[in-house]
Amino acid sequence: MIIFLTSTATTAQIAEVTAYCERAGYSVRLSKDADQTVVSAFGDGGPLIAAEIRRLPGVERAAPISAPYKRASRETHPKDTVVDIGPLRIGGRQLVVMAGPCAVESLEGLREIARAVHAAGASMLRGGAFKPRTSPYSFQGLADVGLEYLQQVRALTGLPVVTEVTHPELVERVSAAADMLQIGARNMQNFALLQAVGASRRPVLLKRGMMSTAEELLMAAEYILSHGNPRVVLCERGIRTFETATRNTVDISVVPLLKRLTHLPVVVDPSHGTGRRDLVEPVARAAIAAGADGLMIEVHDHPDRALSDGPQSLHPHQFEALMDGLRDIASAVGRTL
Amino acid sequence: MIIFLTSTATTAQIAEVTAYCERAGYSVRLSKDADQTVVSAFGDGGPLIAAEIRRLPGVERAAPISAPYKRASRETHPKDTVVDIGPLRIGGRQLVVMAGPCAVESLEGLREIARAVHAAGASMLRGGAFKPRTSPYSFQGLADVGLEYLQQVRALTGLPVVTEVTHPELVERVSAAADMLQIGARNMQNFALLQAVGASRRPVLLKRGMMSTAEELLMAAEYILSHGNPRVVLCERGIRTFETATRNTVDISVVPLLKRLTHLPVVVDPSHGTGRRDLVEPVARAAIAAGADGLMIEVHDHPDRALSDGPQSLHPHQFEALMDGLRDIASAVGRTL
Amino acid sequence: MIIFLTSTATTAQIAEVTAYCERAGYSVRLSKDADQTVVSAFGDGGPLIAAEIRRLPGVERAAPISAPYKRASRETHPKDTVVDIGPLRIGGRQLVVMAGPCAVESLEGLREIARAVHAAGASMLRGGAFKPRTSPYSFQGLADVGLEYLQQVRALTGLPVVTEVTHPELVERVSAAADMLQIGARNMQNFALLQAVGASRRPVLLKRGMMSTAEELLMAAEYILSHGNPRVVLCERGIRTFETATRNTVDISVVPLLKRLTHLPVVVDPSHGTGRRDLVEPVARAAIAAGADGLMIEVHDHPDRALSDGPQSLHPHQFEALMDGLRDIASAVGRTL
Amino acid sequence: MIIFLTSTATTAQIAEVTAYCERAGYSVRLSKDADQTVVSAFGDGGPLIAAEIRRLPGVERAAPISAPYKRASRETHPKDTVVDIGPLRIGGRQLVVMAGPCAVESLEGLREIARAVHAAGASMLRGGAFKPRTSPYSFQGLADVGLEYLQQVRALTGLPVVTEVTHPELVERVSAAADMLQIGARNMQNFALLQAVGASRRPVLLKRGMMSTAEELLMAAEYILSHGNPRVVLCERGIRTFETATRNTVDISVVPLLKRLTHLPVVVDPSHGTGRRDLVEPVARAAIAAGADGLMIEVHDHPDRALSDGPQSLHPHQFEALMDGLRDIASAVGRTL
Repeated sequence: MIIFLTSTATTAQIAEVTAYCERAGYSVRLSKDADQTVVSAFGDGGPLIAAEIRRLPGVERAAPISAPYKRASRETHPKDTVVDIGPLRIGGRQLVVMAGPCAVESLEGLREIARAVHAAGASMLRGGAFKPRTSPYSFQGLADVGLEYLQQVRALTGLPVVTEVTHPELVERVSAAADMLQIGARNMQNFALLQAVGASRRPVLLKRGMMSTAEELLMAAEYILSHGNPRVVLCERGIRTFETATRNTVDISVVPLLKRLTHLPVVVDPSHGTGRRDLVEPVARAAIAAGADGLMIEVHDHPDRALSDGPQSLHPHQFEALMDGLRDIASAVGRTL
Repeated sequence: MIIFLTSTATTAQIAEVTAYCERAGYSVRLSKDADQTVVSAFGDGGPLIAAEIRRLPGVERAAPISAPYKRASRETHPKDTVVDIGPLRIGGRQLVVMAGPCAVESLEGLREIARAVHAAGASMLRGGAFKPRTSPYSFQGLADVGLEYLQQVRALTGLPVVTEVTHPELVERVSAAADMLQIGARNMQNFALLQAVGASRRPVLLKRGMMSTAEELLMAAEYILSHGNPRVVLCERGIRTFETATRNTVDISVVPLLKRLTHLPVVVDPSHGTGRRDLVEPVARAAIAAGADGLMIEVHDHPDRALSDGPQSLHPHQFEALMDGLRDIASAVGRTL
Repeated sequence: MIIFLTSTATTAQIAEVTAYCERAGYSVRLSKDADQTVVSAFGDGGPLIAAEIRRLPGVERAAPISAPYKRASRETHPKDTVVDIGPLRIGGRQLVVMAGPCAVESLEGLREIARAVHAAGASMLRGGAFKPRTSPYSFQGLADVGLEYLQQVRALTGLPVVTEVTHPELVERVSAAADMLQIGARNMQNFALLQAVGASRRPVLLKRGMMSTAEELLMAAEYILSHGNPRVVLCERGIRTFETATRNTVDISVVPLLKRLTHLPVVVDPSHGTGRRDLVEPVARAAIAAGADGLMIEVHDHPDRALSDGPQSLHPHQFEALMDGLRDIASAVGRTL
Repeated sequence: MIIFLTSTATTAQIAEVTAYCERAGYSVRLSKDADQTVVSAFGDGGPLIAAEIRRLPGVERAAPISAPYKRASRETHPKDTVVDIGPLRIGGRQLVVMAGPCAVESLEGLREIARAVHAAGASMLRGGAFKPRTSPYSFQGLADVGLEYLQQVRALTGLPVVTEVTHPELVERVSAAADMLQIGARNMQNFALLQAVGASRRPVLLKRGMMSTAEELLMAAEYILSHGNPRVVLCERGIRTFETATRNTVDISVVPLLKRLTHLPVVVDPSHGTGRRDLVEPVARAAIAAGADGLMIEVHDHPDRALSDGPQSLHPHQFEALMDGLRDIASAVGRTL
């Protein structure tokens, strides 16, 4: 149920509407604006009838929430959500670029890369400690040692860290070491994991499954939101199609589509999206032009020797050039970098 | 490394080859036949050189394993694997049909359905206690109560039970209650879960992801096999395509393709594969004709009232008709039902 | 408008209903049965109101045609259409197998292959004289010489011939030489070509586009039917998906789906559908088990030297084995081979 | 064969190399630069051995052309091709926007729309006279009357016209009336039509099939180029995927991919690409940011009454806003609008 209050509704009236909903078994979110207060009531609270609510003082209108992703829907939260990570804000005017290696491989390498991307203007460091790999025989990540390296390099550079969590049991450990938890594409519908990060206090970067519709992505976000964590950032990272020249196909129109359907921030990962170093920069530009709130980009100091995803990792100087090229695009769409 | 021994190799020679590989750090699997013994050596054991092995007495030839899924590959295990579940054998001449509701909803309903599918010739009971649902607001299954119902109905009918496990922590509980653990399509690349069922002693039904290639399915099986569980059955359940008249598109050619690439049994789920009750029977027939070792089929006593997947669930009398129609097809491909 | 007449409707009453529709500007098709006569009225004939028709004597009920493919829909023609090619009947109890090389390459080769497939039980000869090739530099077919060879080999073996037509201007020439005109997958929505074969008196084999929905296939058939040619056979030949182990993915469920939606016969081409010789036989079996009315299969006497599609062409002895293996499947679904 | 001449090669030496290739049966294209002359030799000219050519005076190196699309490949033509339409240049620094209705419906409507898009900065008028429609019962276009209207409105506004040709026989008539011939997505592999426009002197806009790979698009272009028409512009218009929220999925990375593989200009059609009016502008911005040379956009004065594609057509004021928003993006990537 979405309840729009009149512009003259008093604080007491708002409190009464809220209390009424809670008594009826709903959980409630308040969304305030200069000119309007909106109460979103979630759940199956019993015989809460719209007609009754409409009769409460201060209520302008009340309607059921039509999207199946109730908390993620822009209906129930018309303003953009901004996810704060310390002083960093994802979803605001300033674009956010997360950069770093696919996997954390060594302390020296990570430090080197972190310094380079920091200098070039990245605002977060990415790097996998726990790597979900198609083959059990591929490098699976440095695990806790990788987390330790990420923390050391964060201390050194000040860059907040985003890293993947692959198992509900790891959520606590990764939360202690990282500023943001990443849910990988293969785990987008790992509901046990979604519930676990939903119970965490860390913001979550939720990658779209390579086989998932926009609606399924929003339903996955809803799992996190409905388990208590409101800080979710969505990430388009390419879907599977018949085209074989690229690793995946970036669905560029999902960016404005999501911005219409949800209040959550949306970023794009052109590295996984294309799988080709030479296509990362133009697709990064396209993402910003289409309205993305940021980018996630793989950078490696020696891509040829990378233990994973070498062919799609940029050299540090290429990342620097990419950042330079983005500034004018950002400004053309009213954003800063 | 696959090592083919000569037909005259002695037991002592075989033991020597095995010991040689193990000293070099490999884990070893022996596969014996009337006329040939094959030693498969897995792992990165160090300086084990094919040339040296070829010089050992009794060795005919030695070659690296070419498939990336080493244990799952038919190269290393030319004969069909048969997975035993008590007296039931999956992958042998006799076809196996797993039938039951999408989700366990009530004890009475489950009992009713189990009796009907048993009478019609099903050899296993399916039914979900833990349901991975796209929406957090959909029915998520009866959980432990559902497991309890499955056990009661198994006791009543004697049908072994297959049910889904969605979380590494649940593996033990579900293993206690069920005869076979199902990994759902959305979890095919949930590597933490694959490792957990790999450490279990229960056989595993591994469903192909809806956007996974045959090779990725085999790599997922490899995770289970390489963690110690050799009893894996693969399941084709439809992939995502642009076609909207059906819920998914059954990839029928993956059945013979998998039978060539791997020694593991392969079953087909035409219920999820089509999403339409009226297409289940013809696709079930096609699956058997293409060489599948069995079927997984959703049956419900009141499909219209089913809490999930009603439109694709057969009425018990339709399931009976399906079984009757399958017998001649089975016999045409040298199988029994 | 579909008009169902009462079982006691007289010939005069039927004639009156027909005349009424025609006066209103509709074109009419009559479909008679032991127990029911159905009048299908097509077109935008003006103010023809169902209510008026329902009042005519002998009319039981009248309803608009709901499918967008009006002539192709089973609504307007509940009985299976059987397409006759001389004594050969496609869509009846007897299955039809069309076999031969991808392209006509030489008279001797074609004769050799035709004899072999004839001896093995094929009832039609396939072979391309005009080849639509992705590259302008690939072999484009022998053109008129190829047609000439097809005619000679038909005279020799008595096998009716199906061959592809790629250009509206060629329809007449190909019709003179062949018994059935094939529309290739790439031309399924070449509407100029569909209209041209719609005006021909030859039956048409219409292949599904590799990225076309079932409904689009039926709309393409509707182009042919509505231009005057009622003899259309549909062919599933695999669609494009992300899977790379096969050339295409055979959509097996489209066979029963089409049989429900339309009265037109449906055949399957497992050669293009899989692109792999070793998968042709199991998929052929699956197609028959799923209810297909026949098969189209590529056979070549020297697949390694074939100018096109060698890897998916069967050796003659493999085709013979395939035919042998099909007989029991056919009988299991109430068909003969 | 690509032959790179030395920087000091004389005109006589270049002529000799060219003559040598032609005598050997090749057709030749010369590509000159400030610092390098490149001779591309196409065809199967017989025993033309690279070694021999390398010995000719003035030759620096000679290598076979590796891409299967020889004329379309950037290997054989390193500089961007610019397609001239009168004073208009497609592929240069200035972006080209083609705008207009899906179909020509009336003279008044077309005039209205043309004036509006002209005023907003469009440089070409689009509008279909021959419409390939999925259903034979849908509006098929005004045909010759539509061509006549296009000519009248061109005379009035001065905007050059691009319109679709659907049949080889129509090429001459459409060429007389239009400045550019469009090959629609459904006809991308209609090779008879490609050959016909290859023989025309009009530039061609070649749309990517909704099921075609980038390589197949380039092979289709090669058909046109190899039949004598060098003026081809490629158009990405969305491909088919499992996503149902949009009509198609724009493959944004194909823009930079094509720019690397070929010298031909590339434009994007976000109207068909998304099928949704509200997504056209952001995807248009993304296309320019990704490096596209222009756009094709559907505009209608009364989208709600449009006979085709209404939901994806912009209102004239929306098109004006789109053009305004593009200018800064264009400038950010070094282009003008």
